[in-house]
Amino acid sequence: MLARNMNLNRTCLKYFSVSSCCHQTKHLLRQQKTVARFSSTLLQDKNITYNPSILPQKSFHETKQSIKPLVEDQNCNTFTYRTHTCGELRPQHEGLKVTLCGWIQFSRLSKFLLLRDAYGLTQCIVNNDNINFSDIPLETVVKIEGTVSLRPKDMINKTMATGEIEVVMNKLEVLNTVDKLPFNLRDYQKPKEQLRLQHRYIDLRFPEMQNNLRIRSHMLHNMRRFLIENHGFVEVETPTLFCRTPGGAREFVVPTHHEGLFYSLVQSPQQFKQMLMSGGVDRYFQVARCYRDETTRPDRQPEFTQLDIELSFTNLDGVLTMIEHLLYETFVKQLPKPPFRRMTYKDALSNYGSDKPNLTFDLKFVNIKNLFPEKSDEEDFGAYALPYTKEIGKLTTKYKEKIKEFAKKYSCKVVLNENINKELGIEIGARIQNVVGDDAAIIVLGEDENACICLGEIRLMMASLLKSKELLRVKENVEPLWVVDFPLFVKGENGLETCHHPFTSPHPDDMHLLDSDPLKVRSLAYDIVMNGNEIGGGSVRVHNAELQEKLLKILDIDSLKLSHFLNALKCGCPPHAGIALGIDRLVTLACDAESIREVIAFPKSHDGRDPLSGAPNTISEDDKKYYHISTVKH
Amino acid sequence: MLARNMNLNRTCLKYFSVSSCCHQTKHLLRQQKTVARFSSTLLQDKNITYNPSILPQKSFHETKQSIKPLVEDQNCNTFTYRTHTCGELRPQHEGLKVTLCGWIQFSRLSKFLLLRDAYGLTQCIVNNDNINFSDIPLETVVKIEGTVSLRPKDMINKTMATGEIEVVMNKLEVLNTVDKLPFNLRDYQKPKEQLRLQHRYIDLRFPEMQNNLRIRSHMLHNMRRFLIENHGFVEVETPTLFCRTPGGAREFVVPTHHEGLFYSLVQSPQQFKQMLMSGGVDRYFQVARCYRDETTRPDRQPEFTQLDIELSFTNLDGVLTMIEHLLYETFVKQLPKPPFRRMTYKDALSNYGSDKPNLTFDLKFVNIKNLFPEKSDEEDFGAYALPYTKEIGKLTTKYKEKIKEFAKKYSCKVVLNENINKELGIEIGARIQNVVGDDAAIIVLGEDENACICLGEIRLMMASLLKSKELLRVKENVEPLWVVDFPLFVKGENGLETCHHPFTSPHPDDMHLLDSDPLKVRSLAYDIVMNGNEIGGGSVRVHNAELQEKLLKILDIDSLKLSHFLNALKCGCPPHAGIALGIDRLVTLACDAESIREVIAFPKSHDGRDPLSGAPNTISEDDKKYYHISTVKH
Repeated sequence: MLARNMNLNRTCLKYFSVSSCCHQTKHLLRQQKTVARFSSTLLQDKNITYNPSILPQKSFHETKQSIKPLVEDQNCNTFTYRTHTCGELRPQHEGLKVTLCGWIQFSRLSKFLLLRDAYGLTQCIVNNDNINFSDIPLETVVKIEGTVSLRPKDMINKTMATGEIEVVMNKLEVLNTVDKLPFNLRDYQKPKEQLRLQHRYIDLRFPEMQNNLRIRSHMLHNMRRFLIENHGFVEVETPTLFCRTPGGAREFVVPTHHEGLFYSLVQSPQQFKQMLMSGGVDRYFQVARCYRDETTRPDRQPEFTQLDIELSFTNLDGVLTMIEHLLYETFVKQLPKPPFRRMTYKDALSNYGSDKPNLTFDLKFVNIKNLFPEKSDEEDFGAYALPYTKEIGKLTTKYKEKIKEFAKKYSCKVVLNENINKELGIEIGARIQNVVGDDAAIIVLGEDENACICLGEIRLMMASLLKSKELLRVKENVEPLWVVDFPLFVKGENGLETCHHPFTSPHPDDMHLLDSDPLKVRSLAYDIVMNGNEIGGGSVRVHNAELQEKLLKILDIDSLKLSHFLNALKCGCPPHAGIALGIDRLVTLACDAESIREVIAFPKSHDGRDPLSGAPNTISEDDKKYYHISTVKH
Repeated sequence: MLARNMNLNRTCLKYFSVSSCCHQTKHLLRQQKTVARFSSTLLQDKNITYNPSILPQKSFHETKQSIKPLVEDQNCNTFTYRTHTCGELRPQHEGLKVTLCGWIQFSRLSKFLLLRDAYGLTQCIVNNDNINFSDIPLETVVKIEGTVSLRPKDMINKTMATGEIEVVMNKLEVLNTVDKLPFNLRDYQKPKEQLRLQHRYIDLRFPEMQNNLRIRSHMLHNMRRFLIENHGFVEVETPTLFCRTPGGAREFVVPTHHEGLFYSLVQSPQQFKQMLMSGGVDRYFQVARCYRDETTRPDRQPEFTQLDIELSFTNLDGVLTMIEHLLYETFVKQLPKPPFRRMTYKDALSNYGSDKPNLTFDLKFVNIKNLFPEKSDEEDFGAYALPYTKEIGKLTTKYKEKIKEFAKKYSCKVVLNENINKELGIEIGARIQNVVGDDAAIIVLGEDENACICLGEIRLMMASLLKSKELLRVKENVEPLWVVDFPLFVKGENGLETCHHPFTSPHPDDMHLLDSDPLKVRSLAYDIVMNGNEIGGGSVRVHNAELQEKLLKILDIDSLKLSHFLNALKCGCPPHAGIALGIDRLVTLACDAESIREVIAFPKSHDGRDPLSGAPNTISEDDKKYYHISTVKH
């Protein structure tokens, strides 16, 4: 399989080498900007491209370089009236008559102008007085015709892809004028996010956004190539207007002209993909739009994209292997060779206090329950130490306060390093010192799971503190991790709730506990975690209708509402398993972006509002009448 | 460009050769079924695959053959516990130990069974008494292990891809049992559509559905390859939860937890793709889910898929050329070489009475206005003849009634061939005879456009009648056609309405008529039509904010509701144009399917109901409360 996928691998490598180049660029730019602010007057003005006020061009240029075309002879000029992009002219084009289109990024002395498009920057010059652009504002859209000319040697700009040439214009045509812009297109004057989102049509011109959207498109296309071309999957589009799936997130409702009847917007294609399995479409995937009304949670969008996959005649190992190869061959950064590391939910919790542990740094818990012999019989009691370097010294009040909050939130006793002897006694203090050696430690005691999660939050806080003081080694690689053996159920407010979703198969080894001790039953669910982010999750599904009905009963879900689904299982449904990857988060990691909003063309803001149009809005009385609804205060 | 796309062309050719093979198969099957019904007892029972009761296997087999993999070494067994699909074993596999999974399609004498999966059928036999499957019902899901063996020469089934081998089983494991099925999986007993949709998870097992979904997936993937790999397009996902677009179809509304505020589900990504152009994403496409609440119209779905494309720095010819090459290289049937035929809206109407004329047959109107000299001054008067062969004889009452209805609907005078002299006088009758020669003719007189459309409906009716009597030559090819020069406005109930959408550019030659005679203004809109179906449409857009505001004013649309959009034009938006292709209809044509529901995995029925789950449904009081709505009778 690896040999067969060499093409994909090559693409992957290209991305990789470039991604790091992109990093360098950012770093460089930051340095340069600092220089620019303080010494612009000192710089010589020989070549326009050295002028610090136009530094963003370099990131434009470098960014374009980072998007290697999937196929070398990809042509971005077909079907247009330009002959070349602003990023592609080179010395070998000398003497060629060209037509370029783009935005005026910078102009100077009515002699030079920098033309920008999505692909780069080209310097255009004028040799006579027929063309006058001194009054044309920046960001005006123009078409220029001219001849490619080599720059004089001392004018060559090596940091610019087109830096060895310039275009001598003989015609300049304004294609569209520009009003006063709400903000400038300068990297070092980047406006606040709210303003950027409100005028996204300008913000998208920044090289980072161009880069992110292109990486997203390429990554998804490479995933499709992997799935369709190499592994015979079929992409099937499933409806988004459907009925409510019992259990799970809040679903948006859509009124219809049938009085009192509503669709629900699907939270995932789960039911459909399982019905496809019953229908013999045994290798399904879809880049699926999903909807959840969770706008109150940060970094969530009311609609999002997942790569949704399901296979028949497979098992847990089959799905995990597939995703490992899919990611290895299509993710833009280098990943470790499959198989990826696996960890049980239990281990993740008791070693890192999280079901999505960040393993790019160590900071592993030490279980010190055995140091409390009088509590060793209490099954629910947990005691953990988080060792860390003493070099950091005593924590400031700010951090102590945070720790107090965690302790309160999880009803745990948290003991700071300096208080161990005082609070736990000299004897236990000595035993702890024995365990953590030269390190300092924070101790958490309490109900076992709570103690883990509490220390897990403290671990992340400490990591960020240690990192800021350069006292923690953090790997730069992406570290993928499978978390497996999740519990099937969790205790909810009204009885048992599902941990994943109601269609997840119990672990075959725990089947006998379903009636007697359901909270002890593990499931065949799995999550893939990267650097502390849950990137995706899935499970082996229940394919037996009887077992499915039993699980619904335990969960107190009315099986009548799922009769179509249960019928699909009854009519010859093969064993199957699947997964969904969160594309927004995956691309965020791939782009080193700070939030998923940076990899979505038109994201909503935190409370689900569209910063561009102001949606959601009021609707007309006619619409309300047609849909048989009225707005009420509750 | 053609040389570069050879790979795509090859794929296209594969599809083509197969598509016709598929036709043959269907034809053959129809013949065979007829034979089977009447002579099954006469057939020898030597080889189980000759048994007429299992004829559907052949179409399964042939259908699979029709889906050539995009890449020859595509592997459909990776990540599963089968070693081969049921369609791939050949004599060269003799002696190989294999594991197959699938559904029992047929079993006989506790000795033979036919195993089916999405890829074909394999005959499995048992040589000892250890395996007993006499009690296992059809459609049970099983896993079998066995050894590939050559069939005896006289048992070879040449009409079956795996017909030279059989698998000698040494193990059979039931993976899932099956309840009584609502219908059998036999082509010649296909149930009514309502029942098929209600149990779509079974219906999908039919070879036609498997075929259609695979053709859809491959066609879309090839379109992506064309756009991304060859032409540097970027696929950008845009939101579906947005604000209402003024003008256009009814949009579903989605209540939010912000009291009284609603999203609208987008009817297309139109505004977003134009904002992307302003944002410098100059080659955009998206396979986009769109929503329109038009469930009362036949063959419409509340949600549908369109291939949405937009380019900057292009014009009408650029977009038309792009789509011609896209379709030529990715459509599964052979199309004529680009450029495709173009026809003005005016010509389409006055020659065929439709803006989407079906040109696979002739039946062209003759304009006979000049035969009525006393009316020649009336600009609005139209007179047309539809000539057709006399061989058909007099029309029956049923057709005459239909024609009467058309006449009434369009307020026209329709004269049947036999009444020409009587109703129009001998003199005009002679003139008409002179024009239509040896043919008969139906004459329509009335307001010009109405007369055209009226005769257009009569034309389609006559074509269907003539075809049924084999009196009309109908081309078997797909005949693509561009219809251009649409009017920009139409008269609506409350003033002018847009013919395409409010963002369509007026024809530059008619710009001077915008104020004085807006109904005479042509637009730069275009439709692509195939065999009488509108497959897609688009336009050169308005990129100038002032012109856009003027058009909104003419259309009486509040420009405040589009201020975000107008701002995008004001901030340096390049000239751009685009198109959207209706994927459901395009794939329907590609698959020779009878309705778009045959190429959609889970379609809604006519009134927008989901036959599987019964959606739309009532919602909970909690949901109503959360969304601040109540249901009311209006």
